[in-house]
Amino acid sequence: MEERDALSLVLFSGTDDKLAAAAILVVGAAAMDRKVDIMLQYWALDAFRKEGIHKPRGASPEAGIEGWEVLQRSIEELGTPHWSDVLRQARDIGDVRIHACSQSLDIFKLSKEDLDPMVDDVQGVAAFWAEANGQVLFI
Amino acid sequence: MEERDALSLVLFSGTDDKLAAAAILVVGAAAMDRKVDIMLQYWALDAFRKEGIHKPRGASPEAGIEGWEVLQRSIEELGTPHWSDVLRQARDIGDVRIHACSQSLDIFKLSKEDLDPMVDDVQGVAAFWAEANGQVLFI
Amino acid sequence: MEERDALSLVLFSGTDDKLAAAAILVVGAAAMDRKVDIMLQYWALDAFRKEGIHKPRGASPEAGIEGWEVLQRSIEELGTPHWSDVLRQARDIGDVRIHACSQSLDIFKLSKEDLDPMVDDVQGVAAFWAEANGQVLFI
Repeated sequence: MEERDALSLVLFSGTDDKLAAAAILVVGAAAMDRKVDIMLQYWALDAFRKEGIHKPRGASPEAGIEGWEVLQRSIEELGTPHWSDVLRQARDIGDVRIHACSQSLDIFKLSKEDLDPMVDDVQGVAAFWAEANGQVLFI
Repeated sequence: MEERDALSLVLFSGTDDKLAAAAILVVGAAAMDRKVDIMLQYWALDAFRKEGIHKPRGASPEAGIEGWEVLQRSIEELGTPHWSDVLRQARDIGDVRIHACSQSLDIFKLSKEDLDPMVDDVQGVAAFWAEANGQVLFI
Repeated sequence: MEERDALSLVLFSGTDDKLAAAAILVVGAAAMDRKVDIMLQYWALDAFRKEGIHKPRGASPEAGIEGWEVLQRSIEELGTPHWSDVLRQARDIGDVRIHACSQSLDIFKLSKEDLDPMVDDVQGVAAFWAEANGQVLFI
């Protein structure tokens, strides 16, 4: 069943909680030998700037300050790795590719060189759909 | 076509509007005899605490106060059931299972006993992917 | 592989950045000859009111004022078309249908006549699932 093998992710949000949720879904899929393609758009692309990928980016606005503090405390107490390190781990164990959306690069006046080396290449939406032959998530 | 039969939902958001949107998608799928698996993460998990599942949790921040009032008024006027009751109904008519994400339980220092009895069990991301053989949504 | 051909989108969010991200995903899928079905719920439905579809609706709250200004500036400088015009273009080149969710119409006390003519019809969740035989996204 080829559809099951690939997982395609449109990563739009740039808050630490959504990026952490995405990273754990990706590492789980990679551990099951599934190819994963991630296209970075908008605020998620912004979160992959080379300098500052570990910079705190807050939680979803619904979390409020209280929710953000819960997350911060749990990271300290549980020693949870940062989402970018979870993604790096996913790339070590599986076939995980990270693409910067060309249109979003234009919006933020960024080029591939401004992004973390974890980002593999620049991709348009047509190329994303051409490869997305299985499940797709928008986060 | 087995892929069509199952629907897997990563429920991340904990605002009443997104939970209501998720619940109606779930009850619709359950009514069509589709197996539904829901994994609760982050703010959605927090929304399933045993005491207070009916507590108002606000709308998506983009709604503003005005949007929240529209929702509240419509619930009164239309007699719309609460999202948790829609999910209960979905579980009555179909095969709908609700799993608490183990990692999110750790973050919020919760255990299964703290959650509404509607939650069936605790699940890791690997188990979620192992069962997700059809469409997947992230809400 | 019939599953690949159709793309079903639950459009829930009504901010300009998410609507623009959705529109570009839709136009990309339509350009590849895929049937696309969009169901408008909640704040996305509100965004399709007949008068005011071009009215600025802000960005995701996480963007902040700074993020919103980045988007506005890029629209001016790049001459990016409005998301509603991208969707119109997608409908010109492909088989893209836009459905208003009947339950959300009730919530906002709207009828089809209040919506942009781009909206084809009113649909319940059962009909949405009946047609959703491929990938599904929630945005």
